[in-house]
Amino acid sequence: MFEFDFIEWLRSQTSAPPDVELGIGDDAAILRPTTSRQVLTTDLLMEGIHFELSSATFEQIGRKSLAVSLSDIAAMGAIPTVAVLNFAFPRQLAFADAQAVFRGALQLAKEHNVALVGGDTNRWNEKLVVGSTVLGRLDHAGWRISGAQPGDVVLVSGELGGSLLGKHSDFTPRCQLAAELAHRYPIHAATDISDSLSLDLNEIALQSNLGITIQSGSIPIAAAAKLQAAHTGRTPLEHALYDGEDFELLLTVAPETARAILQDSALSVPLTEIGRVHAGPAELLISRDGKASESLPIKGYEH
Amino acid sequence: MFEFDFIEWLRSQTSAPPDVELGIGDDAAILRPTTSRQVLTTDLLMEGIHFELSSATFEQIGRKSLAVSLSDIAAMGAIPTVAVLNFAFPRQLAFADAQAVFRGALQLAKEHNVALVGGDTNRWNEKLVVGSTVLGRLDHAGWRISGAQPGDVVLVSGELGGSLLGKHSDFTPRCQLAAELAHRYPIHAATDISDSLSLDLNEIALQSNLGITIQSGSIPIAAAAKLQAAHTGRTPLEHALYDGEDFELLLTVAPETARAILQDSALSVPLTEIGRVHAGPAELLISRDGKASESLPIKGYEH
Repeated sequence: MFEFDFIEWLRSQTSAPPDVELGIGDDAAILRPTTSRQVLTTDLLMEGIHFELSSATFEQIGRKSLAVSLSDIAAMGAIPTVAVLNFAFPRQLAFADAQAVFRGALQLAKEHNVALVGGDTNRWNEKLVVGSTVLGRLDHAGWRISGAQPGDVVLVSGELGGSLLGKHSDFTPRCQLAAELAHRYPIHAATDISDSLSLDLNEIALQSNLGITIQSGSIPIAAAAKLQAAHTGRTPLEHALYDGEDFELLLTVAPETARAILQDSALSVPLTEIGRVHAGPAELLISRDGKASESLPIKGYEH
Repeated sequence: MFEFDFIEWLRSQTSAPPDVELGIGDDAAILRPTTSRQVLTTDLLMEGIHFELSSATFEQIGRKSLAVSLSDIAAMGAIPTVAVLNFAFPRQLAFADAQAVFRGALQLAKEHNVALVGGDTNRWNEKLVVGSTVLGRLDHAGWRISGAQPGDVVLVSGELGGSLLGKHSDFTPRCQLAAELAHRYPIHAATDISDSLSLDLNEIALQSNLGITIQSGSIPIAAAAKLQAAHTGRTPLEHALYDGEDFELLLTVAPETARAILQDSALSVPLTEIGRVHAGPAELLISRDGKASESLPIKGYEH
């Protein structure tokens, strides 16, 4: 009766906010009507692929499961509202550890005013799997991957690379930054860096059918990328280009918007200009140390 | 690049209906505003727990993954509108088999006018997992598990028991029946039979804080339950009470509503009266062959 006990415990941990009429415990949750457009995203995190029990706490695993979906919502310029979670727990996992997974997700949900309104829980003799689905509210047109325009400046939030040293299992999805930007600036294209800077930027190029050239010296490289480079024999820049799971926002905006954003000291996370969008075939180029641009290999972390 | 290929193929298989502004391929789907209340449910189906590769086709596995969520939406009296799916594919699974899983889900989605608008796909060296999350539209108060009233009649759709012989991996979620009933009749309490008749009926008793007595002779027993009983040494009635995964609707309604429903020949699936709701402690009783009622053991299929 693990499932029933767990659901009972879940119900005791959650409360229904005003826009939720019925939360956990029925066949489905009931949500009050909204006049906004909505966004919907889902993720499935698997032990051995997206996290390891040896290097992340159960709270971090639960937190990350919801965080990757919140990062997707942020990348649309939307506000997350409601989430449901799924768990496939290994049978040998202690009840307290299962609770810790949920508690990690619940804590993050509270930080973002997201209501957990349902889920499905089962046990099996295999590895841990956590699924997350999040609904969000969208009060503007929405930021699409395909929205880049020739002449746009490419911006990225925070710093990149070396996420395996810790950030990949303990990051803050950029919902607050997305809300700040959505209120003040027209954003042409956006995505979050989940696969890698090269892969996600290439996706903007492909879907927008435009070329993008980045400047090697302008990429904001995390201290963790430098630390990791000392062990891997790769450069910090390679870690920033290819590691992935940075969960930073990647945006393209008009040059005048970029100027305003880069001078806006009220933003909660700094952004950096890393390149330009231009006409031409859909491709990703890099200019190394100001030299003529060359094709950038597109790759990410191989799980 | 299995994931990218698969998502590309998915996009080619789906189209966005009028209430979907942006489907598969961005960080999240965009849904147009709705004036209805919404319901939201999620399920995670795991190989070895909810299905076996030896006894279900890949199409059936995909179909079932979505079907269990549609059944939850039906049990709220709602109309399913939009779904997202998650896949953890075993690495040795052929691309064509992964496509078959998706095709099974897509076929069912089309039958119910449900738009598949997103998902997450990964591979690992473990077993197959499919997650499904469905949004629905609710144009009335909604059918709650907790809504039973003293004096209510208990109704069940279809026939019960023996689902392991086939129905559990190839059932039709009762969305059409739910829509027919929601338009015409006040339903007090409802759920779908996923765990088992005894477990799900007990949940109505518990959440409504009322007693329920069923009549052993009135339970509609499926031919499959009789077939299975010949091999298991259990009675067909035991299979109907305890097998689960029938995915039929279980309802409680006022006696006059029950009379009208039972005489309504326009309903797409017949319903059967199996018991009564009464005041008293929250418990589930059974009257066997008209004798004084006794406590009914509460149990289901142990995965």
